[in-house]
Amino acid sequence: MSLKNDRFLKALLREDVDVTPVWMMRQAGRYLPEYREIRKQAGDFMTLCQTPQLACEVTLQPLRRYAFDAAILFSDILTIPDAMGQGLYFSEGEGPKFRKVIRSAKDVEQLPDVNIASELSYVTDAVSLIRKELNGSVPLIGFSGSPWTLATYMIEGGGSKDFRIAKQFMYDNPEAMHQLLEKLASAVSDYLNAQIRAGAQAVQIFDTWGGILTPASYQEFSLAYMNKIIARLLPENEGRKVPVIVFTKNGGQWLESIADSGCHAVGLDWTTDIGTARNRIGDRVALQGNMDPTMLYASAEAIRKEVASILQSFGKGNGHVFNLGHGITPEVSPDNVAVFVEAVHEFSHQYHG
Amino acid sequence: MSLKNDRFLKALLREDVDVTPVWMMRQAGRYLPEYREIRKQAGDFMTLCQTPQLACEVTLQPLRRYAFDAAILFSDILTIPDAMGQGLYFSEGEGPKFRKVIRSAKDVEQLPDVNIASELSYVTDAVSLIRKELNGSVPLIGFSGSPWTLATYMIEGGGSKDFRIAKQFMYDNPEAMHQLLEKLASAVSDYLNAQIRAGAQAVQIFDTWGGILTPASYQEFSLAYMNKIIARLLPENEGRKVPVIVFTKNGGQWLESIADSGCHAVGLDWTTDIGTARNRIGDRVALQGNMDPTMLYASAEAIRKEVASILQSFGKGNGHVFNLGHGITPEVSPDNVAVFVEAVHEFSHQYHG
Repeated sequence: MSLKNDRFLKALLREDVDVTPVWMMRQAGRYLPEYREIRKQAGDFMTLCQTPQLACEVTLQPLRRYAFDAAILFSDILTIPDAMGQGLYFSEGEGPKFRKVIRSAKDVEQLPDVNIASELSYVTDAVSLIRKELNGSVPLIGFSGSPWTLATYMIEGGGSKDFRIAKQFMYDNPEAMHQLLEKLASAVSDYLNAQIRAGAQAVQIFDTWGGILTPASYQEFSLAYMNKIIARLLPENEGRKVPVIVFTKNGGQWLESIADSGCHAVGLDWTTDIGTARNRIGDRVALQGNMDPTMLYASAEAIRKEVASILQSFGKGNGHVFNLGHGITPEVSPDNVAVFVEAVHEFSHQYHG
Repeated sequence: MSLKNDRFLKALLREDVDVTPVWMMRQAGRYLPEYREIRKQAGDFMTLCQTPQLACEVTLQPLRRYAFDAAILFSDILTIPDAMGQGLYFSEGEGPKFRKVIRSAKDVEQLPDVNIASELSYVTDAVSLIRKELNGSVPLIGFSGSPWTLATYMIEGGGSKDFRIAKQFMYDNPEAMHQLLEKLASAVSDYLNAQIRAGAQAVQIFDTWGGILTPASYQEFSLAYMNKIIARLLPENEGRKVPVIVFTKNGGQWLESIADSGCHAVGLDWTTDIGTARNRIGDRVALQGNMDPTMLYASAEAIRKEVASILQSFGKGNGHVFNLGHGITPEVSPDNVAVFVEAVHEFSHQYHG
């Protein structure tokens, strides 16, 4: 089945496109009333993730409303630690939690060697189903959390303000931390390759918490493992390259080394000017981003102005995938998302062809 | 009265020192049992800030334990909005809150013009008292929040995860936001000058939330107002220069423009390598920082190693004030602070003289 709209994949490979492609991190999510309806029906969040029909439905919802140029698998970044037996659950208003935590070298050693592809067949089943339902309209993005980001949750037992337990573990037990990250890198590679085999046409590694590290720790404990993963990924499937996007939130100071990871595109948060980023690394990779997600609370006029400003900052030529600088938040009005998506397509014509 | 230890002031002016001076953001704080005792006696946090004898006592506490090279006035960054009638209070476990919030241009216009120096005489009284009690042992640092940082709390009504109300106000009402920031810049200048006249020998502007902005918004809504303040500050007092430190958390991408603010030193958080920062701007200003505060949860060995690594990264020569990259957190063991301070002095000899 041929892809009707492949500008997202082309832009990631810095090929010619007619307009700048756009999607949004967390585009399938709580800002949509139809998502909240399905979420209520599912009962709990994990049921939604683990039921391919429901995960497929919420993945497709934003595409029915908006002219997004890509779909992204609906899932959670913490499926891997859950598959490793850590017992993921969600307590209302508190975010993700784990029943078991990693606090010693022994805990790391005792992590079971699981076959990620078979443990997480609910994810690959969802990928296959979404591909079928998309019917070639737009490409599907698969994803995973980065090893460092997964490790922080596994050690802390959930989210954290300052990640001090995870960092203390890293500072005091660097060898055990490396052993944990090695296991996670292996699991993430297998997981992303399983998603690619099931039909994911691009993949993104979410390094949500890489940016809380010192520059030296970032290189050693986060980026090094993303490099390993990228080297192990299937370079193509269905006769087409499978581009890899690396997104380190607050990674703006380290763009050069992220660009050297072997990825095809670097995701930018909103604290980096995309024109400056292009001067620094845009001759090597594509760039994805990077409107401040809170801009979606502003007026239509302000949103349109900001989209125009980011497009102008990137300038003419190839290699830009428009996105927010982080995930959309639940209280945004769906009308403002329409303004955003339309503005990207409307204003970007002049920078192409 | 002559200053017995002036290496902090000398380092800020990039003059010769024997060892690298060190202090810690929030060095007077909850990690000290003697602080918690006074805090309990005071009843509430604002009483502690507003009673010069108590503010003086907690300012001096860390200096009795550790060989810090500077004292910093104990106070809160939100005294200015409180003096403007916003009604600051602290609810247990929730951080600072305001009874009144700014949500419109009219709210900004109606902010009273107050004489900051007289409204905040409890702060200048504390400064005078601390100077007397310090008796020339080490210099005293005064401080204020930056206009942008104060504005976020005044608009949000307290802390925030994504600052969306403050940012929406900025995006949709830029003129009203500028009017608010202008009023705050004027108040901050008056406040810091009053602290200098009362005896503060250096001042730091805490731009805690500048780093959540886009690069363009940071320039327009945060840095521009810090520039104005610095231009209005008393350049010297008691026959000595009064150095100004600007600390924008997450400002690592904008160091060049911060260094051009007219400040004498740029504060760094831990996500910037201090050697890289020195290459970028260290020929123009001093640098302050920048150990990850969570490192203080690690072993003595790990702390000493990290201190050595930061000193080595800065290298030989003048212009380094050692500090954490952000405030010390309450659960740190006081013993680890001793390890930290001693390591800075012990290991830095080789880089001086």
